[in-house]
Amino acid sequence: MTENDTFAFDPEGNAASALGFSAVGVHAGFRADPERLDMALVVADEPCAAAATFTTNVFCAAPVRVSREHLNEGGAGSPAYGCARAVVVNSGIANAATGEIGLENARKTAELVGVAVGCPADEVLVASTGVIGQHLRLAPFAEGVPAALAAMATAADDLAGRTSQGLTAARAIMTTDTCPKHGSVSFSGDGIGYPGVTFTVGGMCKGAGMIMPNMATMIAVITTDVPIAAPDLSQALTAAVNKSFNKVTVDSDTSTNDTCFALASGAAAPDGPAFTPGTPAFDAFQRALDQLATTLARKMAADGEGATRLITVTVRGAATADDADAAARTVANSPLVKTAVYGHDANWGRVAAALGRSGARFNQEDVDIDILGLPVCRAGLVVDFDEEEALRRFEEPEVAIEVDLHAGEESATMWTCDFSHEYVTINGDYRS
Amino acid sequence: MTENDTFAFDPEGNAASALGFSAVGVHAGFRADPERLDMALVVADEPCAAAATFTTNVFCAAPVRVSREHLNEGGAGSPAYGCARAVVVNSGIANAATGEIGLENARKTAELVGVAVGCPADEVLVASTGVIGQHLRLAPFAEGVPAALAAMATAADDLAGRTSQGLTAARAIMTTDTCPKHGSVSFSGDGIGYPGVTFTVGGMCKGAGMIMPNMATMIAVITTDVPIAAPDLSQALTAAVNKSFNKVTVDSDTSTNDTCFALASGAAAPDGPAFTPGTPAFDAFQRALDQLATTLARKMAADGEGATRLITVTVRGAATADDADAAARTVANSPLVKTAVYGHDANWGRVAAALGRSGARFNQEDVDIDILGLPVCRAGLVVDFDEEEALRRFEEPEVAIEVDLHAGEESATMWTCDFSHEYVTINGDYRS
Repeated sequence: MTENDTFAFDPEGNAASALGFSAVGVHAGFRADPERLDMALVVADEPCAAAATFTTNVFCAAPVRVSREHLNEGGAGSPAYGCARAVVVNSGIANAATGEIGLENARKTAELVGVAVGCPADEVLVASTGVIGQHLRLAPFAEGVPAALAAMATAADDLAGRTSQGLTAARAIMTTDTCPKHGSVSFSGDGIGYPGVTFTVGGMCKGAGMIMPNMATMIAVITTDVPIAAPDLSQALTAAVNKSFNKVTVDSDTSTNDTCFALASGAAAPDGPAFTPGTPAFDAFQRALDQLATTLARKMAADGEGATRLITVTVRGAATADDADAAARTVANSPLVKTAVYGHDANWGRVAAALGRSGARFNQEDVDIDILGLPVCRAGLVVDFDEEEALRRFEEPEVAIEVDLHAGEESATMWTCDFSHEYVTINGDYRS
Repeated sequence: MTENDTFAFDPEGNAASALGFSAVGVHAGFRADPERLDMALVVADEPCAAAATFTTNVFCAAPVRVSREHLNEGGAGSPAYGCARAVVVNSGIANAATGEIGLENARKTAELVGVAVGCPADEVLVASTGVIGQHLRLAPFAEGVPAALAAMATAADDLAGRTSQGLTAARAIMTTDTCPKHGSVSFSGDGIGYPGVTFTVGGMCKGAGMIMPNMATMIAVITTDVPIAAPDLSQALTAAVNKSFNKVTVDSDTSTNDTCFALASGAAAPDGPAFTPGTPAFDAFQRALDQLATTLARKMAADGEGATRLITVTVRGAATADDADAAARTVANSPLVKTAVYGHDANWGRVAAALGRSGARFNQEDVDIDILGLPVCRAGLVVDFDEEEALRRFEEPEVAIEVDLHAGEESATMWTCDFSHEYVTINGDYRS
């Protein structure tokens, strides 16, 4: 994707940047530390088109089930879309492995928020992240939701104030994340049928480890003010997630709670017409959504537990798209590749070994590998390279591993992070 | 498998325990340290039936290609068997990613050993383990092979002396292994058609990390004195490897050099008849071979790089054998499960998450999980357990994770080890 003056990325953007949305984070009481924000509420001024993608893990948490119902998902993996007015996310407790009581608590959460906001319960989407096996308490919502709505009221007519508040929402969904992750992309309606209008796609996400017990799961909330019908929003979201969040791996686990919501208010062009697939407007929206989702996904990978480096694995020249994906994913998941990057070791042999077991079809005599822009393997054979120069390049925050299998035309990119002593400390010392 | 008095395991057994074989390790010069053994030679008194299984990695090393040729393998994954007189293994250099020169060096190694032993080059099997991308030097073989043969001559007529020498071979193939891995199983010919005869299956292996740059790959050499034709030996070996070495994962990598050789001299019953599938004799041999291979595989898993605990993952109640294998393998490969064991954390949520993304079909409401014999999850829900008792049980060297999916009748067991700070140190600090 090339940059274009009509697309502007704002690193301060968030789920309240698009017209028609408020977002606030509060300390509701899921966590003991009163300084720690632990509940985010996103509310649309009016009912919105909504869509989502969810974890494919068989062990899925109660809020995932309830949000799937509210978005009329036909079954795991099928499109999920409908109408929504609010999204509530708590951190601290995942409400996973909680059985019928968990489902009931997730439903009661939606009811409680619906009553407070003034919408039906099935227009409320819910997500949770934190420790599994513990039951979600409702009392914190009973305190936190009114507090969040009161805060929103103070900035109701002030877009800058709303955006500023939105930053607190991004902090409230963090678990082992070391920084909040948010942003927005704006683009002009000129030339795509909406002269003089500026459209915005904003959002927030959390990631880090990827899994229990702290449920360092992926949760993203994206909002936009484009006018679009829910099925078309679902199509755009699924495409964007496949290019971004689904290309991130921190420790090869997909979590029980992974969720990405998108809400579209249409408030930037309330008189429409709606963006529809195949039009320049839809293409522009897809591009903005892709850019935002990719930016958030890279932030997630770079902030993996204990990470010191973002690793970008690109495989080109694969026979099929599935081969490209399998090859890039296997390299990105290899503990040996990840520890080598941690050790600043341009160890292409570990990359080669991962490629070789990935299932992708190629001949070892054809493979080229570059690490940090240095050719380290050509035609399957070792290439002498300047180790001093490699060590210098390892000082950069991002490490590029580039592979050409010379077996076809397909390519894929995955993002991950290195594997550090700190990762073992975080995940080995969590409870004991 | 239940124990039986006619099957005796000897922890001091090795590749020289069966009648008709010598095995010796020497310092040939692949490594700089003159104290470090770095070449193992196994020689049969007469040409033997031989079989092997090899890595499925697309990047396979030159010695793997040459040994495949010598055992007439029709293609990766098809049966490999034939006739062999000797096996030579060097540690220190893997001869992987070395192109045509590497193939030539592997062939010259076989020729050199053949001339010294007095057999055709294609009756010599070769394996290498160590750094990749470096060319194998032949000079160490030119010194080491005669030295090994001279040592063997001193114990030619002395089985106890041969067996004692065999221990040096097990040490010579080590890379990051912290201990040599070997053993033998003997069984009586009484009741299976060979009254008064004792048969022995012995062997050695090396494992540890699993991969480059130190090629901590899996190499095993098994010898036996049963009379058996090469195709039948291949069948038995493939079955044993699938139950043992193929159920071990240290860091989810299969290496470029993974190799398991088996040689059968028939020397315990030189007048035959040969063991054939479907007979009690063949079943007894299979059982002994399975026991030896499983014991060696467990030693390999327990000695994974940086390991502090052996982890045994057993999945029962799977709908299919593939589901059972996928579920057990995904749990065993999960860095989060492995760091939890390192942290002595009976964290069944991470086990559940791995099961959920394994592709195995089950309902989360049906799943039971025990860790170290303690029920920690029943019907997909958390079970209160005595955390103090769990911590006490984590002091044991082996950690059992047992799952029942209640989705069918199939089961699978995998072995792995925990993921420690030391693993990151070994693999992150290897070269830089």
